[in-house]
Amino acid sequence: MALVVQKYGGTSVGTVERIKNVAKKVMAAKQRGNEVVVVVSAMAGETNRLLALAQQISELPDERERDVLLASGEQVSSSLLSLAIKDLGQPARSFLGHQVRIETDKAYGKARIKSIDSTRIKRALKAGEIVVVAGFQGVDEEDNITTLGRGGSDTSAVAMAAALQANVCEIYTDVEGVFTTDPGICPKARKLDRISYEEMIEMASTGAKVLQIRSVELAKNFAVPVHVRSSFSEAEGTWVIEEDKSMDSVLVSGVTYDKDEAKITLLKVPDRPGLAAQIFSPIAEAHIVVDMIIQNASEDGTTDLTFTVSKADYKKAISLVEKTASAIQAKGIKVDPNIAKVSIVGVGMRTHAGVAAKMFRVLAREGINIEMISTSEIKISVVIGEKQMERAVRVLHEEFIEKQGNL
Amino acid sequence: MALVVQKYGGTSVGTVERIKNVAKKVMAAKQRGNEVVVVVSAMAGETNRLLALAQQISELPDERERDVLLASGEQVSSSLLSLAIKDLGQPARSFLGHQVRIETDKAYGKARIKSIDSTRIKRALKAGEIVVVAGFQGVDEEDNITTLGRGGSDTSAVAMAAALQANVCEIYTDVEGVFTTDPGICPKARKLDRISYEEMIEMASTGAKVLQIRSVELAKNFAVPVHVRSSFSEAEGTWVIEEDKSMDSVLVSGVTYDKDEAKITLLKVPDRPGLAAQIFSPIAEAHIVVDMIIQNASEDGTTDLTFTVSKADYKKAISLVEKTASAIQAKGIKVDPNIAKVSIVGVGMRTHAGVAAKMFRVLAREGINIEMISTSEIKISVVIGEKQMERAVRVLHEEFIEKQGNL
Repeated sequence: MALVVQKYGGTSVGTVERIKNVAKKVMAAKQRGNEVVVVVSAMAGETNRLLALAQQISELPDERERDVLLASGEQVSSSLLSLAIKDLGQPARSFLGHQVRIETDKAYGKARIKSIDSTRIKRALKAGEIVVVAGFQGVDEEDNITTLGRGGSDTSAVAMAAALQANVCEIYTDVEGVFTTDPGICPKARKLDRISYEEMIEMASTGAKVLQIRSVELAKNFAVPVHVRSSFSEAEGTWVIEEDKSMDSVLVSGVTYDKDEAKITLLKVPDRPGLAAQIFSPIAEAHIVVDMIIQNASEDGTTDLTFTVSKADYKKAISLVEKTASAIQAKGIKVDPNIAKVSIVGVGMRTHAGVAAKMFRVLAREGINIEMISTSEIKISVVIGEKQMERAVRVLHEEFIEKQGNL
Repeated sequence: MALVVQKYGGTSVGTVERIKNVAKKVMAAKQRGNEVVVVVSAMAGETNRLLALAQQISELPDERERDVLLASGEQVSSSLLSLAIKDLGQPARSFLGHQVRIETDKAYGKARIKSIDSTRIKRALKAGEIVVVAGFQGVDEEDNITTLGRGGSDTSAVAMAAALQANVCEIYTDVEGVFTTDPGICPKARKLDRISYEEMIEMASTGAKVLQIRSVELAKNFAVPVHVRSSFSEAEGTWVIEEDKSMDSVLVSGVTYDKDEAKITLLKVPDRPGLAAQIFSPIAEAHIVVDMIIQNASEDGTTDLTFTVSKADYKKAISLVEKTASAIQAKGIKVDPNIAKVSIVGVGMRTHAGVAAKMFRVLAREGINIEMISTSEIKISVVIGEKQMERAVRVLHEEFIEKQGNL
C-alpha cells in the first residue's frame, strides 16, 4: 500500500464542478489501494478577492492580519473538497494548519515550515479516511496564523510528503507537466518526462511558474519524488527526481524567461572599496531582492554599476539609489524597465564546455544585444531588451533542444 | 478603567465602508479609556453564500466540514476589522476560536461553549491592543472547529464578557434596541429602556429575533449586563439586566409573534397510557423540536392530539406521524401550516392575576379564534390563524402596552 500526497491548485478547485471532479480523482487513487493525503489551494481568484478587500481597508495591510484573512481561502476549499469526497460515500476529513500543527517561523506572508505533527493525519489514514489539508498556511509557535507565499501550497504538499514519508508527491495543475519552455511562445516546446531537482530549482528561479522554488528545495532535501501532472487528464506528467547519470547527456533541459525585472545603472561611480556595500545596504534594508549585478571598471578610475530588481520594487529602489548616488558622487542614474531575462538550464552543462559561447553566438546571429550575463554551474542567464525576448526564447529552444544541443 | 465587550452583527460589518465605521466606534470606546474586546459576525450574506456552496456539493453536507467552511466567514471579518483598526493607528489583534481556545462540546452546528482561555486576550489588552474575536466559532477538545448556530456571535460575546468579567456586553445591531413589538407591524411599538433576563429569554423564544436565546441564558447565569444598541447611532439602546422591584409594575413588556410553526393534529386517538410517548418518540429521535402540545379528552374514549413544529421540520414530522397514526388506530391526521403564535411577555404577570383572561377577551372581541394556548409564569402564547396574526399583535400591543395594562 502506497502513501500518496496529491496537491490541487486553485484552477483545479476553481468551481463546484471542478471540486467534484477532484473528489472523483482522489477517490480513484484511494480505490487503487493507496492511502491518500490531499493538499489544496484556495479556489482560483479567491486569494486576489481577499487581498483586494484588505487593500480597500488599508493601503499597506498589517501582515499578521492579512495572513489570517488569506488563510480563510484554503479553509473554504479544503472543507468543500472534504464535503465532496464524503458525498461520494468515502470517509474524509479536513485539517487546517493549526490542527495538524504545520509549525512555521514568524515571517508572515513568506513563512517557512519548521515541523509538522503527523499524529492526527496518521490516525485518520489508519481509520480509512482520505485526509484533506489546507495548503499555504501554518501557525507559528504562538498559534498565530502564517502563510507561505504565492505557490505555497506546493511547499505544503512536499513538506507533508516528507513528514509522512510518502511514496510520491503529485502536483496537479492546469498544464501537463514541466515543459522545455513556454508553449505559448514556442509551439515546439515539449513536456519533459523527468527533470532533476537542481534543474527544476534553476528553472523556477529563472521564470518557470509551475512549482514554487522552495517546494523543490524541500523535495531535494528530503528526496521526495515529485510528479507534476494535469488535473484534467490521466496522462503521465513530469517527474522531478534526483539527478542520475543519464541526465548528463542532455545539455539543456529548458529555456526560461522572466519579464518581471527592471534594470538600474549608476553611472561613473568613483571606483573605491566599500562602494557596493554603500549602494546595496539601503536596498537590502528595504527588503528589496537584487537579482543580477554587474560592475565594469573603466580607465578613468570610475565604474558603471548595473543591477536588476523586480518591477514591483523598481520605483522604491530608484528612490533609494538616488539618495546614495549623490552621496557617492555618481554622475547619474540610468533606468530601464523594458528588459527581460532569458535563461538556459541543464545539468549537462557541468560536463560540457562551450555552452555559454554557443548561446552568445546564437543570440548575436539574431542581432540580439546582451546587456547582462549571469551564470551558475547548470544555468546561463542573459538580460536583453524586452521586445527581443520571445525571439530569443525561440532560437535558443531551437538550437539547444530541438536540435538536441550539438556544440 | 472599564472592560467593554462589543459585538457587531453581519449587517454592521457588511461592507468595507461599514467595517471602517465600526473601527472608528471601537477606537472611540478605547479613547474613552476602556479596554475593548470586539466580537464580530461574518459579513452580511457570507454565511448564506458559503452554505449555498456546500449545498451545491452535497444535499446534506457533513456537519463537521460545514462548520469548518462557515467558520471562515468570521475569520474574514475579524481580520478585516483588525486591519481597519490598525489602519487608524491603534494596535489591534484578531483571535480565532482555536487561538483563545473557545472550547465547546462536539455538537456541530449548535455547539455550546464550555470554557474560554482568556490568557492571550488579557496579555493583548495589557499591551494596549484592541482585541477582535471571531464570533460564532469554537473548537472541541480535539481541535475540531465547531459553530454555535445562527446568532451564535451573541453567545460568543456574552461568554467572552463572562470569562473576562467585563463591565458590559454591548450588542450592536441594525435596530435601536429591544422593542415592545415589531415596529414593522405596529407603528406604535417603542424601544424598551430595560428588560429582565427572564423576559428577554421568553421574548427570544417566542419570536423576537434581536438576541440568540442562549446568549441571554448565559448572560443571566453570569449576571452579565447586556446593552442592545444600534451600530448606526450613538443613542442608548435597551439594557438586559437582572429583574428589580420596579419592573413588577409593568404587566406586559412585549408582544411577540412567530410565523415559523405549523400544526399537526391526530384525530380520535384511543385514549390510553403511553400514547404520547408512542407519538413523540420517533419525532424526538429525528431531532425535531416540538413546541406546543394540547390534548382534549372526549367522551367516546378517544382524544384529539395537536402539536406544533417548525415549518422546516413540518413535512418530515407528518411522514413520521402517519406511520404512528395507523399503528395506534387514530382516525386520521389534520395538518395546518397557516398558523401563527402570538405571545405576551412580562414579569408583572407573576404578581397580577387576570392577564390571560384579558388577552382572551381582547382577541374574542376582534373575532380572532384561539386554536392553542400555552403559558409560563411570565408569558402567554396563543396559536391563531396566520392571516389574523398582524391584527392580533396590534390589538394586544394597544391594550397591554399603549394603555399600560389596566386589567
